[in-house]
Amino acid sequence: MVEQEKKIAYLGPEASFTYIATKGLFPDNQLMPMTTIPECIDAVVEGKVEYAVVPLENALEGIVPLTIDYLFHEVNLYVVAEILEKIQQHLMVNKSQVHNWQHVEEIYSHPHALAQCHKYLFYRFSGIPLRQISSTSAAAKLVAESPERCIAAIGNASSAEKYGLEIVEKNIHDFHFNHTRFFVLSRHNTRLPVEKAEVNPKTTIMFTLPSDESGTLHQVLSVLAWRKLNLSKIESRPLKTGLGHYFFIADVLADENDVMMKGAFEELNSIGVTVKSLGTYYTHLTPEG
Amino acid sequence: MVEQEKKIAYLGPEASFTYIATKGLFPDNQLMPMTTIPECIDAVVEGKVEYAVVPLENALEGIVPLTIDYLFHEVNLYVVAEILEKIQQHLMVNKSQVHNWQHVEEIYSHPHALAQCHKYLFYRFSGIPLRQISSTSAAAKLVAESPERCIAAIGNASSAEKYGLEIVEKNIHDFHFNHTRFFVLSRHNTRLPVEKAEVNPKTTIMFTLPSDESGTLHQVLSVLAWRKLNLSKIESRPLKTGLGHYFFIADVLADENDVMMKGAFEELNSIGVTVKSLGTYYTHLTPEG
Repeated sequence: MVEQEKKIAYLGPEASFTYIATKGLFPDNQLMPMTTIPECIDAVVEGKVEYAVVPLENALEGIVPLTIDYLFHEVNLYVVAEILEKIQQHLMVNKSQVHNWQHVEEIYSHPHALAQCHKYLFYRFSGIPLRQISSTSAAAKLVAESPERCIAAIGNASSAEKYGLEIVEKNIHDFHFNHTRFFVLSRHNTRLPVEKAEVNPKTTIMFTLPSDESGTLHQVLSVLAWRKLNLSKIESRPLKTGLGHYFFIADVLADENDVMMKGAFEELNSIGVTVKSLGTYYTHLTPEG
Repeated sequence: MVEQEKKIAYLGPEASFTYIATKGLFPDNQLMPMTTIPECIDAVVEGKVEYAVVPLENALEGIVPLTIDYLFHEVNLYVVAEILEKIQQHLMVNKSQVHNWQHVEEIYSHPHALAQCHKYLFYRFSGIPLRQISSTSAAAKLVAESPERCIAAIGNASSAEKYGLEIVEKNIHDFHFNHTRFFVLSRHNTRLPVEKAEVNPKTTIMFTLPSDESGTLHQVLSVLAWRKLNLSKIESRPLKTGLGHYFFIADVLADENDVMMKGAFEELNSIGVTVKSLGTYYTHLTPEG
C-alpha cells in the first residue's frame, strides 16, 4: 500500500501497543522505534521518516496531552490516517516457570496495564506485589531474563512472542471495550488509503476563541450544528497563557473539502476564531492479536 | 473562619503546593496529609475529616484526570470553595553549600517542577544532571539530609523553610502566570465564606449526553447561552464505556439557585441530559509566598 522504502517512526519499544498498530498499517516498511512522543513527531518534521505513529487517546485513560500539545504548539503536520486498536492484556511467564505460574511471587508491568487489570489481580492474586516498570515490553524482557524466578509480566501477545514467554491467562483486562486511537502524521496533507476502513472520512480541527467570552464556544458549535456537521469528539487543553485560556481539538465527521466545511471555516474566521484543519483521513482497524 | 476542631485532609506531603493552598484557607485547623488523591477524597466520604483539598487543574499541565474521574465515578461530594494558587519555583541548597551553589552537581525535583523550569535550567545549568523524585518536598528533604554534597532542589518557599534550606535563586519558573486550582470538598452542599474572594460565585456541573448524537452538546450550550449563563470552562473525559463516549465537566458563572439556572437544569433533564450540580462556591486566592 505504502512504498516499501519509506520509513515509519513509532513510539517504541518494539512490541509496544503502538508497534502493533503501526505494523498493522505498514506491514512491509522499515519501522523505527522512538523513545518519546516528541522524538517521534520530530522525526517526521526533519524528514528522517515519511510517517510517524503516536497515541492520541485511550478509552479509559483519556487523551494523551503530550501528543495534542505538541501538535498544537510545536509543529505543523497533518493527520493522514487514524488507527484504532483493541487493547488486550495477557498474563505471561518464563517457559521454565509454566508449571508453577499459579504461585507467581511478583507481577511486572506498566502502571496503566496494572490498572487495566485491577479487578483480575485483586481477585486472583491478592497480596502478590505488583511492580511498576517503564513499559509492558520491558516487563516481558525482564521475565525472559529471569528464568529462575517465579515472576509474571502483563502485556500484549506481541511482547510474549518477541521474548519467548508463555501466555498462561488470556484477556485479563477488566474492561472489554478498551481501545487506543493513534494518529499517523505526515508533512503533507494527503490521505492514506486504508483497508478495513470505516467508510466515512473524518477531519480533525484545532481552534482558539477570540476572547474569554464563553458564548463563543456556543457560536462555534452553532456554525457547525446548523450545517449538520457532526462532532464525534471535542476536548479543551490549556493554552499555557493562564488558567481559563484554552484551545480546542475536535473531530468533524465530514471532508474538509465539502462545501459546508468550507463555509464553516469562512464563518469561523469571520467571527475571530482561529481554526486550523489537520486534514481529512480514514480509520484503520487493527485486527485482534 | 472554620471551627478549629474540624480536620482537613490534603494531598501531601507537608510543604507541598496543596499544603500551601490548604494552610492559606484553613490557618488554624488540623491539616492531615494524604498520600493519594483518592485517599484524600475518601477521608471526607468516611467522615474522618470535614473537608478535603485536592488539585483540579494547572494552567500548564491541564486538568488532573484522577480528581475529575473520582468525583464523577466514585463519590457524591460537593465543592464548597475553590483555591487559586500562584505556582512559584525556587532553587535551593543546603546551608553548608551556599558559597558553592553555582557549581551544583545535580538538581532534584518533581518531573513537573523540572519541566516548569526547563528554560532556566537549559540556559543556566546545561549539562547538569536533573534527577526526578516523587515531590518537590522530597527533593528538599534529600538536599537537607546531604550537607556534604553540592546538590540543589527546586521547590516552593515552604519546603525551603521546612527543611532549613537556603533559596539561592528565586522564581526560576519559565511561565509567570502559572496557577493551580484546587477544590475544597465536603459531604454537605454549603459554601465556605472566603476572604479575598472574587465577588461572583461559580457553579460546577457534570453532565452526560443522552446519545452519541453530537448535536446534543450544541443543544446543551444553547440552553445555557440564551440565558446568558456563561461557561468559564468545559472539559470532556472518557465515560470508560468505549472510545467516543464522554462525560463533561463545566463551570457556570452563576448561582445554582438562580431562576435561570433552575430553568436550565429542568430543560436539560427534559432533553435527556443527565446533569448534576457539585454546588455553588467562592474563590479563595492564596497570597504569594
